[in-house]
Amino acid sequence: MAQQKTVVTILGAGAMGSGIATPFTDAGHTVRLWGTHLDDHLIDAVRAGGPHPRTNVHLAEGVTTYRAPDLAAALDGAEVVVIAIASVGVRDIATLAAPHLGGVRGILLLSKGFAADAQGVIQLLPQTVTAAIAPAGHGSIPIVAVGGPCKANEVAARQPTAPIFAVAQGAADWAALATTPAYRAASSPDCDGVEICAALKNVFAIALGAADGMGEAGDQPFHDLKAAFFAEALLELRLLLEAEGADPWTALGLAGAGDLEVTGLSGRNKVYGSRLGRGQSAKQALDEMVALEQTVEGVSAVKLVTTFVQQRQPQLAGSLPLLFAIHDVVHADAPLQTLLDAGLPA
Amino acid sequence: MAQQKTVVTILGAGAMGSGIATPFTDAGHTVRLWGTHLDDHLIDAVRAGGPHPRTNVHLAEGVTTYRAPDLAAALDGAEVVVIAIASVGVRDIATLAAPHLGGVRGILLLSKGFAADAQGVIQLLPQTVTAAIAPAGHGSIPIVAVGGPCKANEVAARQPTAPIFAVAQGAADWAALATTPAYRAASSPDCDGVEICAALKNVFAIALGAADGMGEAGDQPFHDLKAAFFAEALLELRLLLEAEGADPWTALGLAGAGDLEVTGLSGRNKVYGSRLGRGQSAKQALDEMVALEQTVEGVSAVKLVTTFVQQRQPQLAGSLPLLFAIHDVVHADAPLQTLLDAGLPA
Repeated sequence: MAQQKTVVTILGAGAMGSGIATPFTDAGHTVRLWGTHLDDHLIDAVRAGGPHPRTNVHLAEGVTTYRAPDLAAALDGAEVVVIAIASVGVRDIATLAAPHLGGVRGILLLSKGFAADAQGVIQLLPQTVTAAIAPAGHGSIPIVAVGGPCKANEVAARQPTAPIFAVAQGAADWAALATTPAYRAASSPDCDGVEICAALKNVFAIALGAADGMGEAGDQPFHDLKAAFFAEALLELRLLLEAEGADPWTALGLAGAGDLEVTGLSGRNKVYGSRLGRGQSAKQALDEMVALEQTVEGVSAVKLVTTFVQQRQPQLAGSLPLLFAIHDVVHADAPLQTLLDAGLPA
Repeated sequence: MAQQKTVVTILGAGAMGSGIATPFTDAGHTVRLWGTHLDDHLIDAVRAGGPHPRTNVHLAEGVTTYRAPDLAAALDGAEVVVIAIASVGVRDIATLAAPHLGGVRGILLLSKGFAADAQGVIQLLPQTVTAAIAPAGHGSIPIVAVGGPCKANEVAARQPTAPIFAVAQGAADWAALATTPAYRAASSPDCDGVEICAALKNVFAIALGAADGMGEAGDQPFHDLKAAFFAEALLELRLLLEAEGADPWTALGLAGAGDLEVTGLSGRNKVYGSRLGRGQSAKQALDEMVALEQTVEGVSAVKLVTTFVQQRQPQLAGSLPLLFAIHDVVHADAPLQTLLDAGLPA
């Protein structure tokens, strides 16, 4: 499969969409990049010859770009579709794309998080995508979850990266399709496990950032605390994976520990958490980041995730103290000490 | 047990020995700190009223200090002994202390690593200690492995820390003995697992540091690579724990992921690795750190660990590529690319 030239259409021209264009181009495929109406200015910037405004890296050579109105053209003849848009928009874009998926044999899902269906039931995104495209007769297209530690700017710039491609059948073939010397994809059959890890890492990164912020506010780092939060986060991931029937060992691998590590090193969720750790209120921290046009995915995600747990695994709520403490600090004005009490041994 | 005042003698007055004096004092115990002949200047500095030279934190109030010749006095009436000396000296100090352990009901082992016995067979340190004290009739004193993310200066300064106390029987009681509001000990029956994780983290931290160094040498971080190494390290820990009959889940907890996280944030092994990542040869990196009087435990540890694997689990050698790649880069002039090829998916 890796040897064949495939037409790959990437939906979403933000950081991750434009970043993933690099390995697919390097792997020899025909790559198209389509932007939503929110991305038109990004497409325009790239067409003008500059670096991508979100990654500060030039789009890989040979990629064809499409503005929002040109979705049908972008998908005409596409064999593989990559979804790389903010999780909140996944259902709408999948619905929009559904009529044009006739030749598509797989959808790679880079978007991460959960989504509520029309009844308010929280779902994993692969289910959301499948439900959105099924009415057009494409409900059997396999959805491949792409997780692991992948910063978009590093992927774009060909720095060494180890993503993990997860789908019940044929995951290794999908990984091979995208693998290059820099972007070296692992594979796993555990699609749900990879999705759950990916969705929760933005939440737990808030706690990791809080430990960083406490150190910045004082005269030395709180490394022990950050590491204790890290271990507790992995333990809670393991419990949730087990309860959901996913492979609990996924928490130890690239999708779990790997992605949590990179998300704790940099990124908006960590930065938001560090503001809390330095003493800002949840409201002030979020307001200041919104003013800087920085979306903090973990803030909305922790609401969805805790709702997900309460809907599907209510017996687990008492066993995920760090997750619920993050919710309470972010959404219920709980003091920072709540995090410490939840994230350290009793 | 936590309510009783216990006489605790700490052997080793370096950073970790002096640091652990804080929680034991705060927990209400009578604490004695004995230094080896290598520590006499540290004891002298503390007695002169200054902060401890290694942690830059003052020794907890009320701790009695003992210079090297006063070992018998330090152990007279001791009920709990804490071993906190460099792993290379554990056997000798345990042998020296053995005649004075009559009233001791447990030994907490903070030293980390492996040691070779007289026949060159590599052992875990609890076995080394037991073998050293058995001839004096004390071979049945339980040895409690203390692991998890614990930077000595943070423990000394009462920053929040989550160690893990591991022994087959009664681990929770041992954890309770030392727990304070800042130093909150978890417990586990998996002594061997905690020891193996603790010994290997210094080795894997070299790879984490190498990724940091590659970023420092370029114009942006190599966070994806660091995170990929992190996940691979945990996977290799899991395999080694399974093979040794330890609990593989220990790799996911405080002793595994937690301690690896903190060791990858700071410390000499990470700093040494970052020198490799910036392009220094293994010899140059080590020479410069030795000139700064900075011991890099991972450099000697990787020899012992790979020998341990070859002696006890030779079938595993091919499944621990990152571990052996670190060995080859550090001791066999292998190029840095060896690490990348070993630590990323094939």
